[in-house]
Amino acid sequence: MAGTDGRLRGMSDVEDGAPAVVLVGAQLGENVGAAARAMLNCGLGDLRLVAPRDGWPNPQARAAASGADAVLDAARLYDDLRSAVADLHHVYATTARPRDVAKPVLTPQEAAAAIRRASARGERTGLLFGRERIGLTNDELSLADAILTIPLNPGFSSLNLAQAVLLLAWEWRRAGSLPSPPRPSAAGAPPATRAQLLGFFDHLEGALEQTGFFKTRELRPSMVRNLRAIFHRANLSEREVRTLHGVVTALCGRRKDQLE
Amino acid sequence: MAGTDGRLRGMSDVEDGAPAVVLVGAQLGENVGAAARAMLNCGLGDLRLVAPRDGWPNPQARAAASGADAVLDAARLYDDLRSAVADLHHVYATTARPRDVAKPVLTPQEAAAAIRRASARGERTGLLFGRERIGLTNDELSLADAILTIPLNPGFSSLNLAQAVLLLAWEWRRAGSLPSPPRPSAAGAPPATRAQLLGFFDHLEGALEQTGFFKTRELRPSMVRNLRAIFHRANLSEREVRTLHGVVTALCGRRKDQLE
Repeated sequence: MAGTDGRLRGMSDVEDGAPAVVLVGAQLGENVGAAARAMLNCGLGDLRLVAPRDGWPNPQARAAASGADAVLDAARLYDDLRSAVADLHHVYATTARPRDVAKPVLTPQEAAAAIRRASARGERTGLLFGRERIGLTNDELSLADAILTIPLNPGFSSLNLAQAVLLLAWEWRRAGSLPSPPRPSAAGAPPATRAQLLGFFDHLEGALEQTGFFKTRELRPSMVRNLRAIFHRANLSEREVRTLHGVVTALCGRRKDQLE
Repeated sequence: MAGTDGRLRGMSDVEDGAPAVVLVGAQLGENVGAAARAMLNCGLGDLRLVAPRDGWPNPQARAAASGADAVLDAARLYDDLRSAVADLHHVYATTARPRDVAKPVLTPQEAAAAIRRASARGERTGLLFGRERIGLTNDELSLADAILTIPLNPGFSSLNLAQAVLLLAWEWRRAGSLPSPPRPSAAGAPPATRAQLLGFFDHLEGALEQTGFFKTRELRPSMVRNLRAIFHRANLSEREVRTLHGVVTALCGRRKDQLE
């Protein structure tokens, strides 16, 4: 939760449980600054930058933040998306239009309610935003649990990066003034962190690699995405991730002479 | 109503009954353009400019509109606020903080609902936005029926002009009965039948049985239930069940000499 994080201590009016904003490959410093401003407007403080095009820190970002310096000062820089989301429990990727991926598609309202329910359970959520022109790659999308789409005018739906951050931050803020719907039932167990889930993916994919499961190098990425989508949808608990590690280890260790 | 207005005919996806946006004394062309873009994103097309500081038309506005040219082309220019709002039935003035004026104060949600109710009765509403630095004068405020305040972070509530337009335009759009994005499914793929799912469970559990994964006979039933729960939750497609059969077969067939 942002507010419990040392970096954000003392940042006035940043709320505990606010989602992290993860900007992937942002091209314009100005947009990063405007996004920081929109975040602080709505009480969000946890900004994460994955390989911003023009480096970091960035003077254009500072100018465009119009005083939201605390968010920029606390921003964390990452080389890759994987490490940027490692400590999060839920990751939603914003896309201009739903793609053909086997993931749930949420409206901003649904996402805001889910984030609030998660933070009430002590779980952290991140919102991914892609590059200004080309958005997120399919590989990056494969790291998200769900797709978040803003239902805008279908004839003119392209939103500036900072505007997209604002709308989602606002929806999160807005959801705080409303009573939350009841928790989903199946949720007793602590969910896996993103790092735990990615650790399982590594184990499974590494094991499959050695068996020749990925027929060709070209097929591998889409096969990996399809597999990951299954486990994302299952919304795994920590314990279930341990179980699945055990399954892979057990199956790999099966002795040749025991095969039928 | 915007859509019934000759100026806006042919502007794709602008909705009847959308509120007019009245920018009073806007200082930066860039903000006017970004406001036009935000309007069209949300299906608004009726832009009215009262004495913009740098004159009109404005090339900076064009650049910042990112393709929302139709809104700029249809924009009307006025010398004073009175004439800009003459044909409207309801006028709401946005302010960063409620002032000491004897007018109702509305949230964005309340305003959006009121605008929709009014347009259902054939009545037109305008949203007033003041100058970037100093907002609206008291005289200008006196032309409004109500004050509209966006409840942002009290420690950092100053919103860029175009961001304010976006939030209110979005709230108006959101209040309409908009179709939700497509519902979750495994991206349209046909779901697995129960028989297919059970066939996979048999395969997986049979393979695990031979590895000693189920430590004791007593533990087996609960371990099986936990495993099945994961795959039930994933809501598998037919194709995904085939993939998972392939995973189990591949891992089982892994040769002993390939183990690390």
